[in-house]
Amino acid sequence: MRAEILCVGSELLLGQIIDTNAAYIATQLAGIGVDLHRKQTAGDNLERITDCIQGALSRADVLVITGGLGPTTDDLTREAIAAALGVELQYQEDLAANLRAFFAKRNYPISDTTLRQAYLPAGCVELHNPVGTAPGVQFEGQFRGVGDKWIFAVPGVPREMKAMLDGGIVPILTQKMGGERQIIVSRVLRSFGIGESGLADQVEDILTTATNPTVAPLIFGNTEVHLRLTAKARNEAQAKELLDEMEARLRERVGQYIFGSDAQTLPSVTLDLLQKRGATLGVAESLTGGVLQGFVSETAGSSATFRGGVVAYNADLKRDILGVAAQTIEENGVVSEAVAREMALGAQRLTGATFALATTGEAGPTTQSGAPVGTVWLALAHENGVVTEKREFFGDRDAIRRRAALAALDSLRRFLLSP
Amino acid sequence: MRAEILCVGSELLLGQIIDTNAAYIATQLAGIGVDLHRKQTAGDNLERITDCIQGALSRADVLVITGGLGPTTDDLTREAIAAALGVELQYQEDLAANLRAFFAKRNYPISDTTLRQAYLPAGCVELHNPVGTAPGVQFEGQFRGVGDKWIFAVPGVPREMKAMLDGGIVPILTQKMGGERQIIVSRVLRSFGIGESGLADQVEDILTTATNPTVAPLIFGNTEVHLRLTAKARNEAQAKELLDEMEARLRERVGQYIFGSDAQTLPSVTLDLLQKRGATLGVAESLTGGVLQGFVSETAGSSATFRGGVVAYNADLKRDILGVAAQTIEENGVVSEAVAREMALGAQRLTGATFALATTGEAGPTTQSGAPVGTVWLALAHENGVVTEKREFFGDRDAIRRRAALAALDSLRRFLLSP
Repeated sequence: MRAEILCVGSELLLGQIIDTNAAYIATQLAGIGVDLHRKQTAGDNLERITDCIQGALSRADVLVITGGLGPTTDDLTREAIAAALGVELQYQEDLAANLRAFFAKRNYPISDTTLRQAYLPAGCVELHNPVGTAPGVQFEGQFRGVGDKWIFAVPGVPREMKAMLDGGIVPILTQKMGGERQIIVSRVLRSFGIGESGLADQVEDILTTATNPTVAPLIFGNTEVHLRLTAKARNEAQAKELLDEMEARLRERVGQYIFGSDAQTLPSVTLDLLQKRGATLGVAESLTGGVLQGFVSETAGSSATFRGGVVAYNADLKRDILGVAAQTIEENGVVSEAVAREMALGAQRLTGATFALATTGEAGPTTQSGAPVGTVWLALAHENGVVTEKREFFGDRDAIRRRAALAALDSLRRFLLSP
Repeated sequence: MRAEILCVGSELLLGQIIDTNAAYIATQLAGIGVDLHRKQTAGDNLERITDCIQGALSRADVLVITGGLGPTTDDLTREAIAAALGVELQYQEDLAANLRAFFAKRNYPISDTTLRQAYLPAGCVELHNPVGTAPGVQFEGQFRGVGDKWIFAVPGVPREMKAMLDGGIVPILTQKMGGERQIIVSRVLRSFGIGESGLADQVEDILTTATNPTVAPLIFGNTEVHLRLTAKARNEAQAKELLDEMEARLRERVGQYIFGSDAQTLPSVTLDLLQKRGATLGVAESLTGGVLQGFVSETAGSSATFRGGVVAYNADLKRDILGVAAQTIEENGVVSEAVAREMALGAQRLTGATFALATTGEAGPTTQSGAPVGTVWLALAHENGVVTEKREFFGDRDAIRRRAALAALDSLRRFLLSP
């Protein structure tokens, strides 16, 4: 069963509001084994909405329309469905009675405008809206001589759309699909420290040949590369088995870059590893300016492990708070291995933590330190010493800062996993 | 001139990422008088992408495609354009040379996968990508016997899309449209510290009656409310006059909440005020855990004003580094006015800054301190003392932390503006 979505509304088309409905619909349809093939967005124009409906019905079995069901004259979904099916709008006395009752109960006057919502295209039935006034529209039948076509139209208000999808459309389609239903389950493997093409190269054959689950690489937040596994199965257990098997194949190849899956984040995974060995963390930041500590503390419960740290943005503070020797700064510059090392040791001492991370570098857009923009020294003070790492990051100021902060966390994660 | 947008990517279709590109494209096209008629979203499927391209070209003059230009085999936009136009892909030695140079410069190995990006559909030219490796695609010519059809394909990465739209597509189309254009210019007034309906209530009559410019309220990033002014005019000067006049009307009503416009941010505006009086800033954070300092240091050149600070996540650090008295913590708890005050004074002393901000509170999801989730004490140490403020924030952990950090900055901004 193939589905399409049509989002109606000039405010969506022009980006004045961002569409989040389609994502919800796609996920719920996938959950009952309905494949979403295409999404269209049209402004409040009768001819174009009608054309979108006709196009969708000529390709797909199910069309879900959101928006354009309100009472005003720029709400054109009812008219467009009628035009696409070649039928008239018909006044529905029971819908009008519901609207009158709704308004009377709230002591609002009812207007002719509101009663536009009491019309349905001939051959369509009401799709009940349990949380709002605008009735939905449901059609089942033939389009251009082909039968078993479904149209569901729901309001664009997310709360109403969700109630009607969960309580109406999904149960109707689930029943319709009978025994043949298949579920679609996704799993995301999250990697850090390798680019999209670098990762893709190492699993190229899997990406191109795997069919169930399919595997697709995806850049996430400009810092991670995800591998999205999507399995079709008869039930959750079978889906899990297929996903587990594929995850094992992928980890065998590129496991060193994969830090977690689905909702796990680099900070949450790293804090878990610290907590398991009863260790704590302190931080000293220069170029990352608080971003690293912001990442560490974003995880609920991080205070059990993260003690705190210093943003030594100014060179004086590196000396005065963290105890970096003036001579070290003078001889090496602030963007240097020696300064990163002394910052990490200073943070470890100051916070009393088991481990301390330090960052110093040049975030740009122009160099303040003389070091090329993107140059970063990371240091990790552990129980028996300090390890340092020089990195070169690309991108704008924001990307360099975030990548440096995540790279520091990743260096700790790797250290904690090493034998 | 009619335009359509085609967004390519299964992750968009399935709602795993939300499309924000189309909104930017719609706004920029509107700015040069190009009407957007429809938007389509297709997954990574050659046949469907091709079909979407053919449909769009049969209706519109201009098609902007985002996504599907990367190096991996599920990046199919190049192939689909070729299929829609009925031409072959051709290897472009100059594009390959650029890719090789880009990778050589960064000391990355280049793979055959990457070189997929060196192919263009016959009859198309490169649309230059100034900020990434994936070259764009540009076509001008006939489709099914009708000429003056344009295709522009850009990567889905927002930064690259924007650079190519602003630097390539918009200038090309502007020139193409010649003298007949009417321009649309927007200005965003950014407010903090008031909700959307609170702000809307105070300017209700303007929102409903203003036609040129129109004024629309919009929640931004879950922390700010924006008023978007959109003017139609014959030229920039006329647009500016219309916008200036409306801005003055709005500022008369709600000016106390408006901290800036367009690209100005609360951190950038606050740092500007500090710099103007030659002052510096230090920070002590508890619940915000680095987020406040991350905001302060996100602005390029912030190191001239921001000295640094401490994340005293653990109570011991409030005492040991910031010098908060053990008795103060014991008597008042860490989420208290007294602790916030001593943290601010400690940060001012430690960093030697003119001003210091401090935050302490409960970010949730469950209370660690006993204070209700969302309770925050802010303190500002200035030249002659300390001011404190108790706030209650709502939302999840992330929202509470960000709102508290921005509220701290806003308290400093207001202090700097006060007589």
